[in-house]
Parts: sequence; C-alpha cells; structure tokens
Amino acid sequence: VSQYEHSVTSADKAGFKHYMLKEIYEQPAVTHAAFEDRIKDGLVDESAFGEQAAVIFDQVKQVQIIACGTSYHAGMIAKYWMEGLAGIPCHVEVASEYRYRPVVISEGTLFISISQSGETADTLAALRDVQDQILASLTICNVPASSLVRESDLNLMTNAGPEIGVASTKAFTTQLVGLLLTTLVLGRRFKLSQEKEREIVALLAQLPGLMEHAIKMDGSIEEMSQAFAEKNHSLFLGRGTLYPVAMEGALKLKEISYIHAEAYPAGELKHGPLALVDKDMPVVTVAPRNEMLDKLKANLQEVSARGGELFVFAGCSQEVQPGEGIHVLEMPEVPEVLEPIVYTVPLQLLSYHVAVLKGTDVDQPRNLAKSVTVE
Amino acid sequence: VSQYEHSVTSADKAGFKHYMLKEIYEQPAVTHAAFEDRIKDGLVDESAFGEQAAVIFDQVKQVQIIACGTSYHAGMIAKYWMEGLAGIPCHVEVASEYRYRPVVISEGTLFISISQSGETADTLAALRDVQDQILASLTICNVPASSLVRESDLNLMTNAGPEIGVASTKAFTTQLVGLLLTTLVLGRRFKLSQEKEREIVALLAQLPGLMEHAIKMDGSIEEMSQAFAEKNHSLFLGRGTLYPVAMEGALKLKEISYIHAEAYPAGELKHGPLALVDKDMPVVTVAPRNEMLDKLKANLQEVSARGGELFVFAGCSQEVQPGEGIHVLEMPEVPEVLEPIVYTVPLQLLSYHVAVLKGTDVDQPRNLAKSVTVE
Repeated sequence: VSQYEHSVTSADKAGFKHYMLKEIYEQPAVTHAAFEDRIKDGLVDESAFGEQAAVIFDQVKQVQIIACGTSYHAGMIAKYWMEGLAGIPCHVEVASEYRYRPVVISEGTLFISISQSGETADTLAALRDVQDQILASLTICNVPASSLVRESDLNLMTNAGPEIGVASTKAFTTQLVGLLLTTLVLGRRFKLSQEKEREIVALLAQLPGLMEHAIKMDGSIEEMSQAFAEKNHSLFLGRGTLYPVAMEGALKLKEISYIHAEAYPAGELKHGPLALVDKDMPVVTVAPRNEMLDKLKANLQEVSARGGELFVFAGCSQEVQPGEGIHVLEMPEVPEVLEPIVYTVPLQLLSYHVAVLKGTDVDQPRNLAKSVTVE
Repeated sequence: VSQYEHSVTSADKAGFKHYMLKEIYEQPAVTHAAFEDRIKDGLVDESAFGEQAAVIFDQVKQVQIIACGTSYHAGMIAKYWMEGLAGIPCHVEVASEYRYRPVVISEGTLFISISQSGETADTLAALRDVQDQILASLTICNVPASSLVRESDLNLMTNAGPEIGVASTKAFTTQLVGLLLTTLVLGRRFKLSQEKEREIVALLAQLPGLMEHAIKMDGSIEEMSQAFAEKNHSLFLGRGTLYPVAMEGALKLKEISYIHAEAYPAGELKHGPLALVDKDMPVVTVAPRNEMLDKLKANLQEVSARGGELFVFAGCSQEVQPGEGIHVLEMPEVPEVLEPIVYTVPLQLLSYHVAVLKGTDVDQPRNLAKSVTVE
C-alpha cells in the first residue's frame, strides 16, 4: 500500500477521505521516526533528551507524570513500564486535578508532562506551579516551538508531524514510543539491565512492521464497525498496559462516533458495570493473553444469555474460539512491551469506521478543539 | 422522622420498601458510630486501630491504598485528604490491577486495604502478595470476623452494621469516616497540627446532623429522578474529593438503575466527553463552590443549545441561578472536609428513586453479588 509512504509532514489528505484516517495510516512511519535517531549501538542515546539529560537523570528518585485526555492515557501506560520494567516509582495524574489540590512532591522528582500541542492549559499550569519543588522537568511533545518545550528542562519530540484530526491518533502512539525510550534511559539508573535494554531496543525495530500489520486489519474492522453503528453504548475492558489502551479506544469512540463507550479495568467488571451489559452494549476486550480472557468469559456467561456480544482483540496464539456472541479479531503476535502501541491501532480504526457509518464530522467532532489551551 | 432511629444492626427492612433505602437512612446514625468511640479529649484515640498502632504509625513514610469498586472510590477520596490535609504521600490503586503488575514498594509503606466484607478476592490477594515488602497493613472493614481483618496488622471497623443491599451505601460513608480518622492519626506524624486536628474532630460532630439534612432532600430528589428514568445515559462531574463522589454516584446509577452513567473529573470534559453530551445525557455536577461551576457553565453553553440539561448539587451560599437547562439542588452548608461524605447521600437517593421508577430489583441488581469473593 503506497498511501502511508507519503511524507509524514504533509498536511494535505494525501488521497485519504479524512485526516484522521491518513494519520492512522502514517503510524508505521511516524512510530519509526519517534525512535530511529535516538538509538546508538543498540542502546538509547540519552542526549536526545537535551544537554543536561545525563546529569539530571542521575538524580531522579521518582517520576510524576501529568497530562490530559489522550496524553493522560499515554502516561498511564508509562507507569506500568516504569514500575514494571525498571522499578522506577511512578505516579500519574490528570493535570486539572493535580494543579488544584495541595500535592506532596518527594525529593528527586522528575516531572514529565505529555502534550501533543505543548500548549495544554492545565498541563502547563501544573508545570509552572511545581517548577521550584521538582528536580527537573521533561516534556514529551509534538510541537518544538511550544510553551511546554520552552519551559521544560528536558524535551523529547515525538516526531509525529502535524496532526490535523481533532481525535489524536499518531500523536498518542509516538508519545508511547517516547515514553518507552524514557523508561529505558531512566531504567539504567534503576533495575533495568543493559541486556534487557538491548532486548527492548531490538524489539522496537519490529514496531513499524507490526503497526503495518495492525493497519491491514482495516477491512475486517470496517466490517466489525457495523455492529456498533446502531448502538448507543459500549464497554471496553483491558488489564495492565491494555487498560489505558481500552480507555483510549473508548475515548475515540466517544469523540468522533458519539457513542457512549466507557473503559474499565477488567477486574472491576463484577464490582458494578456488569449489571449494565446487555444486547445494546457490546463489550470490546483487548486481551493478548489467555489468563484474563478465561476469567472474563466466566463473568460474561450470564451476559451472553441476555444477548450481550463480546469482541475480542487477541493474539494469534490465543486459543479463543469464536462462538455464541463471541467475535475474535486476530492480532499479529506482538512482544508484550509493544502491545499497548500496536493494540491501539484497531481501536482507532473501529472508532473511525463507526463515525463514517454514522456520518459524523470525523476530523472536527462537535464541541471539541484540537488543543485545549483554555481551561 | 422516626424511621432512621431504628437499631443500626437490625437486619429487617424496618418499614422501608427496600434494604437500600433503610441503609441510606441509617447513615446519620452509623457515620456517628464510626467515630464516636474513637475520640478522646477532642483528638482521635489511636489505640482504636490496634495495640501496635502507635509503634507502627511512627514509622510510616507513605501510604498505599488498595480496594475495589465502591471501596476504591473511598480510597481515592482518602488520597486527597492524606496529601492535602496532612502532607502524607499517598497512592491508590484498584486491587485487580495492582496485584497483576510488578509494583515498586518504597520503604515505610503502610498498606491500607478497604473492603466492606473483608473477603474481596483481589484485595485479599494483593495484601498477601506484598505482605513481606510493606511496613505494616491496616484494613478499614465492616466485618470483624473476616479474612482481611484477621490478616492485617491493624484494623479499623467501620461500625456500619450489616449491609444487605448489593449497592453499597452506608458501608461507603462509614469507610470515609474511618479514612478521615486514619488521616488524622497519621497526619500528626506529618504536617497536621494538633490545632487543625482538633478543628476537624470538632467538625466531625456536625456530620450526623448534616447527613440528616441531606436525607431530607429525599422528596426533591425523588422529583428530580423523573428526569433520569427515561434516559439511557448520564455524565457525572466533580473536582477534588468530589470527583470520586461523582464516580460513586455514577456507579450507583449503573448498578441498580441500569443507566449508563459515567464520571469524569470536571477539567477533562473538554478533552473528549463534551462531544457526547446532548438532550439524552443529563449532566450531574457536585459543585459546592463557585469556581468550578463558572468554568463548567462556559463549557456547557453549547450543550444547552442542543438541549443538554445540567443538575447541580450546590451549597446554600452558591450563587447558582437556575435557568434554561440548569437545575439547582440546594445542599446544606458543609465544611469542606466533610463534603465528600455528605454529598454522597443525594446521589445515593437519586439512583434509588430512578431504580424504583424503572422497577428494577433495587436490593439485588442483575449479575452482581454483594461481595466479590472470587475473581
């Protein structure tokens, strides 16, 4: 497919019906651009973060991530990586909550802000508020000439190119690449071995190909989207790094398809939302591995009896049998660390196709602005 | 009203149509029971937490709260209190996520579990997993003879009496009282002055009266519930400690009314969910003070034009003018620290009356069990 070989900085639609679809298709290229110049001898080159990077990273004791909307979901995934891969204490909070409460900032805190535009009002205000209590600030951002970049000690550009669609797609997946690189350079100072870093860097090289593979599911997802166009609700479930991916999938569906989609960590299903599920509320599950799915199937047995439908995005080796009310969408085999980046793609495509079926204004959904630069 | 003067341990309906309504009406009495014996000379008596309490509390450097469902919402509120009132670093996570990821546990961590039954499977498993990495464990629980109580170093009973309705009400508000007491005893070791502790303890004495006042709104909330019975969606907004209250309000509506209610921190509205709001999705806001409301009103102007309706629970001194699409429910004047406890009551009543109008099985909603003792 030649479409996504277009220049990543091109601001026209390049033959696509919508900017959003073009931006989804650019992801193999831009996720590559987000890491290619940052790798040296099989390891992450930390000078990509700024001149002071090494000196600052040496003093980091924990990480506080602040962001809004889609960027907040990227931050949530980073927390799993920071703590799980590298043993770095990491906390994440929505900017509008963080800035309006008296917070406790521990010594040695690296404050990471994530924003596509670098102008998100609440995120910028949060940074300004804590400026003199933190060790240093790092922003993961897509716009070099932005306030967050200007006011942060360190920066990592996401290299996604201009994003025109209001619903963020390539900005999100490139933020994830940036946050994974950040986990690796910080992780060296914590419990991440060089061997493990080399292994993850080597896996990163597979990412563009995996993103292409995910995009090739477009046809089957377009088909799947018909089951959603007439619905008013949907429930998205995930566990671990796939829980924020479920949140991001639900947010896309809200933003452009005006379907009330809500995400839950899979384990919370029985603590309330299960009562809601019926034939009018399809359940979408991102479940690369079997364990979660087995539990889920047991929980959803009663729901199937009421006509509830389950759509599962699962890895090839999954032994998920499609059946009564269970639809399986087979994903490529993805290394665990890359799962949240790759599994995001089919959910973006789902929201896109549902929106097209519903005839909404895909690139400019009602009431939403591309960057929330006022509160 | 004599109804809620019945014994708090009575397990019959005491003249109420449902256990849930009885349990809502018991809250002035049980929130009182949750603190009355724990106050000595105007301060919290820390021996209420167990013999080892003082020795353990002296070594606490941070708090990790783990819970599920409604108890998780209580934990979220406690985080605002711990950090905001007392400067105690505090983190909160859903048990099913925490137990399945490699976590970082800092030195001096007090692990607080919250559970009505003391048998919640994921919460119990999380405690067992970290047992040898934490400083000590404390459980806030309603059932003395439970596994969590047995396996924790310290305990604080919520004294709510048996809760029969599956949708938790009095267990939640008494958990909040317990968590506020915990904040005070730990806060002494951090930045909470004795003067401030005395002040908060004195305010606690107002709680039962304020809970009664909130319950007296029953009639106007029953009226308000008619606007929800025909809807399939609702959006709940709050900020600070009222954000988890909004989450709890939305969960009640899900559990027993089968209405897809979702909560958002108010500042996130423009980052996505605003696209969803129209005449079919009433917005409920818990906004004791003016600042948030002014911002919200600006955001919702376009929504009103589409027929969107806003229901505001506001303090008496609020200058909220009811108007086109804006309905105001006047709350008693509540001291800020008690707001999350008192503002929970009208949201419980709302879900109850909507459920009654819809004719659902209030005390035994479909698919839900009172205690989630298996995963």
